[in-house]
Amino acid sequence: MTKVVAIMSMSLDGYVADTNDGVAEVFDWYFSGDVEVLTASASSGMTFRVSAPSADHLRSLVAEIGAMLTGRRTFDNAGQWAGDHHDGVPIFVLTRSAPDEPPPGSARYVTDVGDCVAQATAAAGDRDVLLHGAATAQACLRAGLLDEMELQVVPVLLGQGRRLFEDMPPDHVELQLVRVLDGPGVQHLRYRVRKAG
Amino acid sequence: MTKVVAIMSMSLDGYVADTNDGVAEVFDWYFSGDVEVLTASASSGMTFRVSAPSADHLRSLVAEIGAMLTGRRTFDNAGQWAGDHHDGVPIFVLTRSAPDEPPPGSARYVTDVGDCVAQATAAAGDRDVLLHGAATAQACLRAGLLDEMELQVVPVLLGQGRRLFEDMPPDHVELQLVRVLDGPGVQHLRYRVRKAG
Repeated sequence: MTKVVAIMSMSLDGYVADTNDGVAEVFDWYFSGDVEVLTASASSGMTFRVSAPSADHLRSLVAEIGAMLTGRRTFDNAGQWAGDHHDGVPIFVLTRSAPDEPPPGSARYVTDVGDCVAQATAAAGDRDVLLHGAATAQACLRAGLLDEMELQVVPVLLGQGRRLFEDMPPDHVELQLVRVLDGPGVQHLRYRVRKAG
Repeated sequence: MTKVVAIMSMSLDGYVADTNDGVAEVFDWYFSGDVEVLTASASSGMTFRVSAPSADHLRSLVAEIGAMLTGRRTFDNAGQWAGDHHDGVPIFVLTRSAPDEPPPGSARYVTDVGDCVAQATAAAGDRDVLLHGAATAQACLRAGLLDEMELQVVPVLLGQGRRLFEDMPPDHVELQLVRVLDGPGVQHLRYRVRKAG
């Protein structure tokens, strides 16, 4: 059964980007290893060099992806992945208002969070929907549409910036830690969202 | 050599207490296990029931403590530990202004962070100074006086409350994850602060 899984790198103090939307610190582990991993398509040219355990882990994550769901900010900051996150997997971009010009490649804009998750889930087949973007992860959490989180926790305190969990309602969200991988320079933590009812 | 080690339970989204200074959620793992642990003295009556791995871990932590350093808010919220955190270990309470009435038992008030750390370090002998309190941990981090952090990360999102890392300067603090223990309901993570220079 398809799961909706948020995947984000964050600092120990909860930031996914610094005050200038910079991600150099929280993505440092993506560039400090010995093993080359292509987590996006050759056309978008995103190649990373990570540690061996992180490389195995990223490869298994990519194999699980049936569709991408991303916030507009993340999508634009990533150069829209040149329309191809990897292998032409469909990309659903949650945005407040869709531009007149359609996005490149396999991407499409969707303005409603429920619609966006439904379309991505249908497109994912028997694989998972992987989700990028702090605001989008929060919107899905609030709507009860997030099944799991794959957090890549980096041993640094940024002090200020853009938080993964910000402006959340005071309702507590119970989680279950279901997988831990300690790579050098990053902890890969998989949490299941334990929904009420 | 004596280390100054902040030890705090926090939610995955970085809160050490809810909006009412409540700690039921982040301390849940302290009361949901099968093994009784006395982490404070019999006189203060603080007994916990934790899982077997967390119990072993807490016992080893307590054995390392030569002195306690705590913020005034934490000290007061904990009923001043009846003046005895455990075994009469000296307690140094960082406060903006010391009340006329002295604190109970082995506790004393100190108004300067540098003085407080120096006194606690001297009192700790060849053991460590364990530190409680978000504001106090931040003050020591800012002053370059914090050596390590022992974080007990609980799988819950509180959404709102009192954050461990709040109002921090934008200077990045590089850390090193040096020990991981995955207990049920809590991850015990030991980070070393990698000071610049």
